[in-house]
Amino acid sequence: MEEYRHKLDFLVRDYECDLEGIVNNAVYMHYLEHARHEFLKTLEIDFSEFSKNNINLVVVKAELNYKKYLTSGDRFWVGTNLSRFSPLRFAFNQTIHLYPDDKVALTAFTVCTAIDERKKPILPEKIKNLFENN
Amino acid sequence: MEEYRHKLDFLVRDYECDLEGIVNNAVYMHYLEHARHEFLKTLEIDFSEFSKNNINLVVVKAELNYKKYLTSGDRFWVGTNLSRFSPLRFAFNQTIHLYPDDKVALTAFTVCTAIDERKKPILPEKIKNLFENN
Amino acid sequence: MEEYRHKLDFLVRDYECDLEGIVNNAVYMHYLEHARHEFLKTLEIDFSEFSKNNINLVVVKAELNYKKYLTSGDRFWVGTNLSRFSPLRFAFNQTIHLYPDDKVALTAFTVCTAIDERKKPILPEKIKNLFENN
Amino acid sequence: MEEYRHKLDFLVRDYECDLEGIVNNAVYMHYLEHARHEFLKTLEIDFSEFSKNNINLVVVKAELNYKKYLTSGDRFWVGTNLSRFSPLRFAFNQTIHLYPDDKVALTAFTVCTAIDERKKPILPEKIKNLFENN
Repeated sequence: MEEYRHKLDFLVRDYECDLEGIVNNAVYMHYLEHARHEFLKTLEIDFSEFSKNNINLVVVKAELNYKKYLTSGDRFWVGTNLSRFSPLRFAFNQTIHLYPDDKVALTAFTVCTAIDERKKPILPEKIKNLFENN
Repeated sequence: MEEYRHKLDFLVRDYECDLEGIVNNAVYMHYLEHARHEFLKTLEIDFSEFSKNNINLVVVKAELNYKKYLTSGDRFWVGTNLSRFSPLRFAFNQTIHLYPDDKVALTAFTVCTAIDERKKPILPEKIKNLFENN
Repeated sequence: MEEYRHKLDFLVRDYECDLEGIVNNAVYMHYLEHARHEFLKTLEIDFSEFSKNNINLVVVKAELNYKKYLTSGDRFWVGTNLSRFSPLRFAFNQTIHLYPDDKVALTAFTVCTAIDERKKPILPEKIKNLFENN
Repeated sequence: MEEYRHKLDFLVRDYECDLEGIVNNAVYMHYLEHARHEFLKTLEIDFSEFSKNNINLVVVKAELNYKKYLTSGDRFWVGTNLSRFSPLRFAFNQTIHLYPDDKVALTAFTVCTAIDERKKPILPEKIKNLFENN
C-alpha cells in the first residue's frame, strides 16, 4: 500500500446513499474535497481563508476510478498525497480505503490551481512553498 | 460544436454554490447524472426501475475537465452522447455549455456498467440493444 | 387551493432520492429555498447580490409538514407567498403540489431576516419596501 | 443544559457552506438525520435495514430554530432525545451545540412515523418497545 502524507477517517451517512442504496457518485467528490482541505490545513493553508481574500482554489481536472461501492454504515479512510503538476498547477493523489481490511474503494487524481479576483490562474506563495525547487 | 443525441437545460440554484460563490465541484456530477438519466429515459431505460429490480447502473470511471466556473443564476445545457466502451461497459461523453453563447464550462467522460444482486457486472439486454453489433 | 404570488416547476432528480427511494427530507428545503430565491428575483431582490454586499439573508425558523413523499421522476410545483412577520422579519408560506392533480406533498412556513457584517439583524430597504405600511 | 440520551460530534465541512459562507439551511437537516440514525443504532434500530425490509422511517413534521450560523471549520455536537408522540408517531428533540462553549446553534423538533409497503403508517414492534406503556 502507498504511503500517504495525510489520512482522514469517515463514516458513510445514510443521506449520502441514493436510491440504489449505495453512496451517490458525486458524494465521493465531497469526501475527497474534505480530505484535501483537512490535509491543507495541516500545511497551514485554509481554503476558506483564501476564499475570503478572493483567491479561489479550484479543481481543473478530476479523475475518479470506482472500485467498490460504499454503503450505509461503512467506515473508510481517505489517504492523500500532493505533488507539483505544472508551474501553476498542483495535484492530489487520493485513495479511499475501506475498514477493516483497507480494501481500495476508489482512486482519484485531482489537478488544482488558484484563480484571483480577475479569474486569472495564479499560484500563491504559500502553496508554491509546499514544493521543493519552487 | 459536437452533435449531441440529447440536450438538457439547467439553471444554477443558489444552494449549489459553495463558499467560493461558484458551483461546488461535486454538483457538476449531479448535473451530469441527471442529464444521463433523462437521456436514458428517452431510450426507454429507467435508472430507478432497474434499481427496483436489483440491477444497479453504476459509474466505473469519471473524468471531469473544468473549463469555466458556473455561478449563481447561470443558465446552461448539458449535451450527452453514448457509446459502447467494452463488452460489459458503456460510456457517456458530456459537455456543459453556458447560455447564451454555448461556451464550454466542462467536459466529462463517464464509463458505466451494471451490477446484479450478487455484485457481478452484467450488461442488461435493454442496454446492449442500444448499440449496433451488440 | 390558496392563491400564490409565485409558482415554480420542478422535476425530482434521481440523486435527490435516498436509500428509501424517496426524496431525502433535507432536499425539500433546497426546493423551497430555490423557489423563494426565484420569487425574490421577480421582486428585484437577488440573494447572491446581497451576499456579495455582506448582507446575508438567513432563515430563523423553518416548519415543514410532509404529507406525501416525492419519488424519482415526480413532477411538482412550489407555490410561494410572502408576508411581514415582525419589524425585522419576513415569512414565506410555501406548498409543494404534485402534478398532475395538484395534491399537496408538503406545506412549509419559513421565517427570515437579514444580518449585516457584524451579524446584527437588519431589514434592508429593498425588502421593507415589499410590504405596505413599511 | 438539557440532558441528552445521545451526543454526536461533527465538524463543518467546506462543501456544506453556501455562497453566504455559512452552512446551508438544508444541511442542518442532514446533521440532525445522521445524529438520529446513529442514536437509533445504539437502540438496535437500523434505518437502512428497515428500508431493505420495505419499512420506511419517515419524517412527518420538522421544526428548526436557527440561533447561530455555523461556518467553515466549526466543531459542534448534536444532542438527541426521543419521546412517544402519538399511537403511531414518535418525536425527537435535538439541539446543536457549538464547541468549545456549548452555545446553542439550533434547536429542532422532528416527528416521525414508519410506513409499510402499501404506504400505510405503522409503528414497528422494535420501535414501540422503546417506550414504556407501549
